[in-house]
Amino acid sequence: MSLVENDSPRLPEVMAALVGQPSHATSIGVTGAPGVGKSTLVNALVSAYRALDRRVGVLAVDPTSPFSGGAVLGDRVRMSDHALDPGVFIRSMASRGHLGGLSWATPQALRVLAAVGFDVVLIETVGVGQSEVEVAGLADTTVVTLAPGLGDGIQAAKAGILEVGDVLVVNKADRDGAEAVVRDLTAMLRLASTPAASDSPGWTPPVVRTSAHRGEGVDQLTAALDSHAHWLRSSGRLAERRGLQAQQEVEALAAQRFLADVRDVLGDQATRIARDVADGVLDPYTAAARYRTARRSDEGV
Amino acid sequence: MSLVENDSPRLPEVMAALVGQPSHATSIGVTGAPGVGKSTLVNALVSAYRALDRRVGVLAVDPTSPFSGGAVLGDRVRMSDHALDPGVFIRSMASRGHLGGLSWATPQALRVLAAVGFDVVLIETVGVGQSEVEVAGLADTTVVTLAPGLGDGIQAAKAGILEVGDVLVVNKADRDGAEAVVRDLTAMLRLASTPAASDSPGWTPPVVRTSAHRGEGVDQLTAALDSHAHWLRSSGRLAERRGLQAQQEVEALAAQRFLADVRDVLGDQATRIARDVADGVLDPYTAAARYRTARRSDEGV
Repeated sequence: MSLVENDSPRLPEVMAALVGQPSHATSIGVTGAPGVGKSTLVNALVSAYRALDRRVGVLAVDPTSPFSGGAVLGDRVRMSDHALDPGVFIRSMASRGHLGGLSWATPQALRVLAAVGFDVVLIETVGVGQSEVEVAGLADTTVVTLAPGLGDGIQAAKAGILEVGDVLVVNKADRDGAEAVVRDLTAMLRLASTPAASDSPGWTPPVVRTSAHRGEGVDQLTAALDSHAHWLRSSGRLAERRGLQAQQEVEALAAQRFLADVRDVLGDQATRIARDVADGVLDPYTAAARYRTARRSDEGV
Repeated sequence: MSLVENDSPRLPEVMAALVGQPSHATSIGVTGAPGVGKSTLVNALVSAYRALDRRVGVLAVDPTSPFSGGAVLGDRVRMSDHALDPGVFIRSMASRGHLGGLSWATPQALRVLAAVGFDVVLIETVGVGQSEVEVAGLADTTVVTLAPGLGDGIQAAKAGILEVGDVLVVNKADRDGAEAVVRDLTAMLRLASTPAASDSPGWTPPVVRTSAHRGEGVDQLTAALDSHAHWLRSSGRLAERRGLQAQQEVEALAAQRFLADVRDVLGDQATRIARDVADGVLDPYTAAARYRTARRSDEGV
């Protein structure tokens, strides 16, 4: 796993060695705004899956925060419930900005965990906005978590989180306002043109109430997740989603290598090109074309 | 602007035509979790800048939400305060997922607005997690907005939003708990190893209290923004940031074109490669290498 995290040069070797390994792992992305209790929910899910004797991996994708050393103490402490259980693997994945972010390191970590026999891999991401779309792009099932008191339903729609959720969770269901959130979500899902309805005929995202810190509703959640996993397989959607995920992963790797090659060829010239674009004396398309020419002349050698 | 949004084939032409246009525009990213009142704050900033007779562009980067048609009515309604003012241009930019998202369309829209004489361009993004790092990558100055009652300071650090903020705003400052948020932020900024301190010697992010819906604190905010803009220029940081922004933009464009070329060459084979990776019979690095070979043989023709 460290090889994956550190982008080791030996990573391609490791990935090649995993080819042909059987895997029946299911990946579940858990996303939502800060404060909805995602870590507590993930912790509760780990306990629930362990009670069913399933091996569970957790990949926590936190932005690299020098404030916190990449991980907030609180989370790790809570996760330590499972620290001594060999059936549980927990790793905090640092994110690395745009092209090197979530999209390429996490699928590889996922592949390693699947190959060594984990049954369920939970991917926890802090995210509202762009990043949960990425989660949806790499997990089989995406759980969008909400909680009362953190902005209303319109805010949820605005953040675009509903259309990626296969299962919607209202956590902190014991608090005031939880029923209003459930009502809002249900109303939104009923809108004729829900993307869930158009994108996934045969599957309507269930709204599950949980109080993760008390363990309430977690069995209903695992049942909803199993039911989505079953639907994915029986409808043929699983193969389709994984094909798209794999294509994104391969494209991200290919683009990353392409840029690395170009940077090698251009050297200092890359900085000059960027400066010219910043100064408005070169347009970005012409600059991008130079990147591509640079690589071509390299290949011509 | 529609050309930019729709990724028109004529876009390179338009960008080339803008080369050499003088521009003195400042770009300001406004980010924060849903519910902190970013739109209200942006609206108040527009009014404040108009009172100073500056021309203001607003680029609202909302995830494409079929629930909302890409924009939530409420925002647009509030923004209509400025709908008839020719010194204000407001556009909602739909985001388009990973490689085609925020990073390439927004800088180009920004360039167009700067070239036609806007003085300030405000970029509003819903974002906690990965996406505000992208905002920081494209705006001269990044404003991170918080509000009381939306998760505590630790949650803010966890979301990684503090290290990208040049100016920190505690909005809804008239509400209970606002002073606690200010105190938390101030304490965090004081930590010896703040990234702001190490990355930006000579600049400590100020914490500004606003009640945007009442217009309170907005003049203090524009003053803080002017002061950051001044610091950026006098310290040489502006050229440096813009150089990095331009490099990211050019690389994103080059990678995008590279992948488009490869998809053309591979055709159906791309789907087969992705399927093989998803099925675990091909590793992603070998697959990515095929992408690169595909392009090479194309060029050999």
